[in-house]
Amino acid sequence: MFKVVHTMDVVSERVQDEESKGVTVKWLITREDGAQNFAMRFFEVEPGGQTGFHSHDWEHEVFILDGKGLVVCGDSESEVTRGHVVFIPPNVKHFFKSRGDEKLSFLCLIPYKSDT
Amino acid sequence: MFKVVHTMDVVSERVQDEESKGVTVKWLITREDGAQNFAMRFFEVEPGGQTGFHSHDWEHEVFILDGKGLVVCGDSESEVTRGHVVFIPPNVKHFFKSRGDEKLSFLCLIPYKSDT
Repeated sequence: MFKVVHTMDVVSERVQDEESKGVTVKWLITREDGAQNFAMRFFEVEPGGQTGFHSHDWEHEVFILDGKGLVVCGDSESEVTRGHVVFIPPNVKHFFKSRGDEKLSFLCLIPYKSDT
Repeated sequence: MFKVVHTMDVVSERVQDEESKGVTVKWLITREDGAQNFAMRFFEVEPGGQTGFHSHDWEHEVFILDGKGLVVCGDSESEVTRGHVVFIPPNVKHFFKSRGDEKLSFLCLIPYKSDT
């Protein structure tokens, strides 16, 4: 099913896990749209906020849209801003932290596992 | 492998298929980075240019980054600009056309098939 939607028109949900602070997510493309292989999500992190420091057995493909941030992945870290691309491999602890006075916003895509 | 790169630092390649006009692509995240499930590409379409009108058996997940464009998919079409999200299902003919005086730029993600 062909779908066109503007990010502004997608409902924003607060990320509820205990370690996340000031993080919201919009699910832009999901299985409900017919996407069988991977999902596109849009995250916003308020100034001073960050995502949980966790790991899982799937990867992240990330594109930074706005704001300034710090990405930590295992023992590495990197400053990011608009146009940065980040690949987080499976099973490595990671988080995204907002820096500066604006929200950090980014796309984060994840695979749909064939067994789920 | 953790990877951080800026889009500006990725090599741009001209899309060579006969139907594309004024289109370049940067492969931002690929199998070479350890991405086993899907690839992230960045496209730019010059003013007046467009991608080929074609179909294939995989989907596109698209996020419009800049410029103005027209997306045609089967019998449907839609104007798009920054922040628009597009899902192109498999096996439907489609193209992206640049409108206005700036380049149209967008992310376009595709699955890696398990059999290829």
